[in-house]
Amino acid sequence: MNQAVAPAAPSQAEMRAALESYVARINSGDRDGILALFSPDAIIEDPVGSPAKAGEAITAWFNDTIAFATQIRSVAPIRGSHGNAAALMFDVTFQPPGGPAMLIRSLDVCTFDREGRITSLKAYWGPEDMEVLAR
Amino acid sequence: MNQAVAPAAPSQAEMRAALESYVARINSGDRDGILALFSPDAIIEDPVGSPAKAGEAITAWFNDTIAFATQIRSVAPIRGSHGNAAALMFDVTFQPPGGPAMLIRSLDVCTFDREGRITSLKAYWGPEDMEVLAR
Repeated sequence: MNQAVAPAAPSQAEMRAALESYVARINSGDRDGILALFSPDAIIEDPVGSPAKAGEAITAWFNDTIAFATQIRSVAPIRGSHGNAAALMFDVTFQPPGGPAMLIRSLDVCTFDREGRITSLKAYWGPEDMEVLAR
Repeated sequence: MNQAVAPAAPSQAEMRAALESYVARINSGDRDGILALFSPDAIIEDPVGSPAKAGEAITAWFNDTIAFATQIRSVAPIRGSHGNAAALMFDVTFQPPGGPAMLIRSLDVCTFDREGRITSLKAYWGPEDMEVLAR
């Protein structure tokens, strides 16, 4: 048989590249580029402990992300795994409408499908990891 | 009724304190102190993608941790969540017997029981997050 077999998991480099693109596309306000990094059936739990979002709720989530001028600054090298997961540690700032700018010290743990698309994103941050920035 | 009700999850401060104790006890070689931070039915998946350890395998794991002179250096503030999870981002160095010292850029995502004990620890690091240190 000369049949190509898809690998069970993306490579470390593919997962890393996807997370680096995620940061770059958020910082440049590229909503469609961000959505292209996700599997159609992806779920987002942000923060962990809140209900998971999927489908159109994810589109709406990233509409807000762009509208709020969200900027991500990575604070440590991306971590891989020995499976289909990788993690991004970052500080994120954003400007909600009518309110002061905010900063959250966050951490996204993501899983990926064989094509290197994000299938789940879980953001670890608690009430004490958020602060109000001076105007 | 004047009955105390246990909270569903430990506080952010309790989870943070447990992870800070975890770092301090590893760095001081306090094996029993480390084990006391875990629930009796805790599991450890280190790295993510490898089989989970429990019970005596966890005791053996931390025996090695101490024997290998493991040192942890936190690289970013601990992240909490809106549930019973928190995360520690760190570089870890250790000296396996007969080999060179190693460094791993890792990330522990932990869940906790009501008493603030660790019920699961998942360590995110891939083959590319490990390096051999000069002797």
